[in-house]
Amino acid sequence: MSIERVAIIGLGLIGGSIGLAVQDKIPEIRTRGWDVDADVRRRAGERGLVQQVCDTAAEAVADADLVILCVPVGAMAYAADAIAAALPQGAIVSDVGSSKASVARALRHALPGATIIPAHPVAGTEKSGPDAGFADLFSHRWCILTPAPDADEAAVADLAGFWEGLGAKAEIMDAEHHDLVLAVTSHIPHLIAFTIVGTASDLEDVTQGEVIKYSAGGFRDFTRIAASDPTMWRDVFLTNRDAVLEVLGRFSEDLTALQRAIRNGDGDTLFELFTRTRAIRRQVVEQGQDDARPDFGRKDH
Amino acid sequence: MSIERVAIIGLGLIGGSIGLAVQDKIPEIRTRGWDVDADVRRRAGERGLVQQVCDTAAEAVADADLVILCVPVGAMAYAADAIAAALPQGAIVSDVGSSKASVARALRHALPGATIIPAHPVAGTEKSGPDAGFADLFSHRWCILTPAPDADEAAVADLAGFWEGLGAKAEIMDAEHHDLVLAVTSHIPHLIAFTIVGTASDLEDVTQGEVIKYSAGGFRDFTRIAASDPTMWRDVFLTNRDAVLEVLGRFSEDLTALQRAIRNGDGDTLFELFTRTRAIRRQVVEQGQDDARPDFGRKDH
Repeated sequence: MSIERVAIIGLGLIGGSIGLAVQDKIPEIRTRGWDVDADVRRRAGERGLVQQVCDTAAEAVADADLVILCVPVGAMAYAADAIAAALPQGAIVSDVGSSKASVARALRHALPGATIIPAHPVAGTEKSGPDAGFADLFSHRWCILTPAPDADEAAVADLAGFWEGLGAKAEIMDAEHHDLVLAVTSHIPHLIAFTIVGTASDLEDVTQGEVIKYSAGGFRDFTRIAASDPTMWRDVFLTNRDAVLEVLGRFSEDLTALQRAIRNGDGDTLFELFTRTRAIRRQVVEQGQDDARPDFGRKDH
Repeated sequence: MSIERVAIIGLGLIGGSIGLAVQDKIPEIRTRGWDVDADVRRRAGERGLVQQVCDTAAEAVADADLVILCVPVGAMAYAADAIAAALPQGAIVSDVGSSKASVARALRHALPGATIIPAHPVAGTEKSGPDAGFADLFSHRWCILTPAPDADEAAVADLAGFWEGLGAKAEIMDAEHHDLVLAVTSHIPHLIAFTIVGTASDLEDVTQGEVIKYSAGGFRDFTRIAASDPTMWRDVFLTNRDAVLEVLGRFSEDLTALQRAIRNGDGDTLFELFTRTRAIRRQVVEQGQDDARPDFGRKDH
């Protein structure tokens, strides 16, 4: 692997975790970082998220051979612009955005001629900011690379090797297919969680206090997802609009069918679905994608 | 408290947890139990879920002063019928069903003249059956009692004291209001989780393998809820139909509004909601209703 100097632009949950993971797992790679927010830069320095927190984006990327943009997808163009003048010839530019086709377009536009290999580590928590990152965030998680068809193969291999060095498993995927898969496995689940938490807090006949008090019946799981970073998620929905609307249409159809089954007292339809979904959980756990312990093994108090 | 002998009818997750919790926390109360399934009775005996596993429901309740029906809500009438002839005069009959108005009607019909105090401990996991129960399931969780307006006050107090002895916090509520509150905090979240897991596994352009592989982006949380007991949940939706359909209508309206915001690129509407939902998570954690650690503190592998 030829990557020796990585620059991390944006030092929140993901950028901070990359910085900590590199220092922990591939300490021979030098880490520099920058964040547009001076408070975040200060906190990143205190926590040692990267070896050197720089005052400007240009300084951070000056001699990097890998630059990773870890900002909300709506800010990718701005971040790319901030590094454009100082970007070394031949450096790989990557990102961690949750939607890929629109980000790839934005980066190609802002950085003509650069070696751009978009990527998306499928990992995170509901926390955000420079205090949220930790070195093991990517362990056993997938990182999906979405290189253009004509991308430099050695650069793709280098980036895949970098992510595997952080404990992730790398996968190559077409950007449009990525956006559809993630609409299903991440974007729509978040949208639904945001919606139901909003619905619950707006009812007239049930108070918000009651909703919170009795949330252990299932609702509390949705509040965790709905606590995710608002800026990041606004941008995901705006930039992956078509895939999100397509999957949302299917979800709404299916929900309408279940609504009708409930109205008609059709228990067989409900039972058949609930049995099928149980089997999918089993596979998620078997494939190491979730904690096998009941209730995620969480402690309630 | 005058409860000295409890009979548990149904020895799955909830019934088994009650049996273990009584033996752990109020050992002076004698526990007997029965389950309609002989395999469950055998396993309950092996695990010691109750002090005595009986061969018949009649034997289990013969001299009980509290009988708790821990069966799916659709089976409450059958369970009540099984104990009717042997039920001691003056014994309290309670249950743990997730919908209360219909259960109260079923129990009143099956056990005329009995002291019926329906209850619902708001606790559980995605596991079910005689191996799933544990003594601390109810610790710091709410147990909602829904006595009829003319219910015996001493019996209500005894039952509340019993649940507090198991570590729960008892609350009195009108049955219809309970059903609306739980439709919001439990039933609709489950219905949505079942639906999205079903939708995801039925798509043509995204394989089930991909859905499972990349589930850490949010989807896996829904698979946990969608792994809950199919029989129990079918019955909940059939017996709490009106409240479920009412809240589902509101949810669908809200989802349609967000769909429109995404289609129109209205980021402000998205951002405003996502900020509001984040605050609700904070309250859930502050009120001890969920684990404060990121990602529920779960281990991924």
